Parts: sequence; structure tokens; C-alpha cells
Amino acid sequence: MPTDHLSSTFAALADPTRRDILARLISGEATVTELAEPFDISGPAISRHLKVLERAGLIARGREAQWRPCRIEGARLKDVDDWLDRYRRLWEERFDRIDDYLRDLQKGGTNDHGN
Amino acid sequence: MPTDHLSSTFAALADPTRRDILARLISGEATVTELAEPFDISGPAISRHLKVLERAGLIARGREAQWRPCRIEGARLKDVDDWLDRYRRLWEERFDRIDDYLRDLQKGGTNDHGN
Repeated sequence: MPTDHLSSTFAALADPTRRDILARLISGEATVTELAEPFDISGPAISRHLKVLERAGLIARGREAQWRPCRIEGARLKDVDDWLDRYRRLWEERFDRIDDYLRDLQKGGTNDHGN
Repeated sequence: MPTDHLSSTFAALADPTRRDILARLISGEATVTELAEPFDISGPAISRHLKVLERAGLIARGREAQWRPCRIEGARLKDVDDWLDRYRRLWEERFDRIDDYLRDLQKGGTNDHGN
């Protein structure tokens, strides 16, 4: 198991069911039963996914022994957002280049065809 | 192994060495030897990491049989950025709430102390 925060976060996100669970929690807290409902997998399987998400700090769970509702925690996802920062220029520059190209094309069009 | 793109991307990013390799590639193409240099791990171990990154579409490699320089590919990271979009309000709203709180505090300060 990865030990650094970012590695555990990415490992926890590397599963479509866990990402679906997170997406569901955007709209508010939910119990395990509520979270299991849309999935064709067992309660224990959902619990295992929740444990991975909880260990990674992506969700937190209430203290009520029976219900323990889950809620999403934004901090770890913000870490991913911060980590992505230095890579953004890879696609932003690309779009800038496309913009430049289109601008040049437009200028060329004005010169060549007078419109 | 995960089969959907986003899962392979997250799985590939769940390792600090692979993230370091990506960070190195921001400044330009590099050969396996150059990429291995800063790490205290074997050439074959680096090659395995590169294979994971390549399969996930995070890097691409040149065709020259001997050198096969690696370069970073932004598209998959942009997918992560797009995926994060719906979660951003989790921390942005939080900051908005802190802003509101500080604004209220400031207003209160003006009323109570006249400064």
C-alpha cells in the first residue's frame, strides 16, 4: 500500500465504483445502504471500497454506530488539483497555439480574400 | 489492471517515482538513462515504471530503437483536470464561506470599535 498521501489518493481514485461513490456524495451525506443501492455488488464489497476511500481521507464517516453516514472530504482532491497545477500549461499552451494558429489563419484570410 | 482510461491514469499516478518521472519530463524529452539518473533504483525498474506510464497514455516514446526518448503527453492529465471540475466547488465554496466570515468579522469590527 502506498504511504504518501498523494499516492493513496490516486490509488483510491483508480476504481470506477469508488469514483461513483464520491460523485454520489457531492449531493450530500449517505449511509452504506444508500450508497450500495445503485451498484450490483454486495454490501461487504461496498464497505471495502468505503474503507479505501476513508483511509485515503477522501471521505469521513459519522460516529453513530449503526448508520455511520459518509460524507465527502474535499482536502485530498484539492491536493490533486494543486499537484496538477504545473502540468496545466501542457494543454493550456496547446490551446494557446491553436488560438494563435486560428488568429493567423483569420489574418491570412483577410489579406488573401479581403473579408 | 484497470481497463477504463481514468482508472489506468490514477493507478499510474499512485507512485511517487512515476510522478517524479513525469515532473522531469515537463522540461523536455529524456532517455531512460537520463530518467534513471536521479533515482536509486535499477534500469529495469525504471523501464517497468515507464511501461505503466506509457500504457496509461501519460508518456509517449520515440521510435529510435536504441534511445526511444520519452515525452510527456498532456491529454490524460487534462482528463483528470476535467474529472476534478465537479469537485472544485467543495473547496472553492469553503473558501467563499471563509471570505464571507472574514467580511462579516470586518463589518462587525467596524461597528464595535469604529475603525
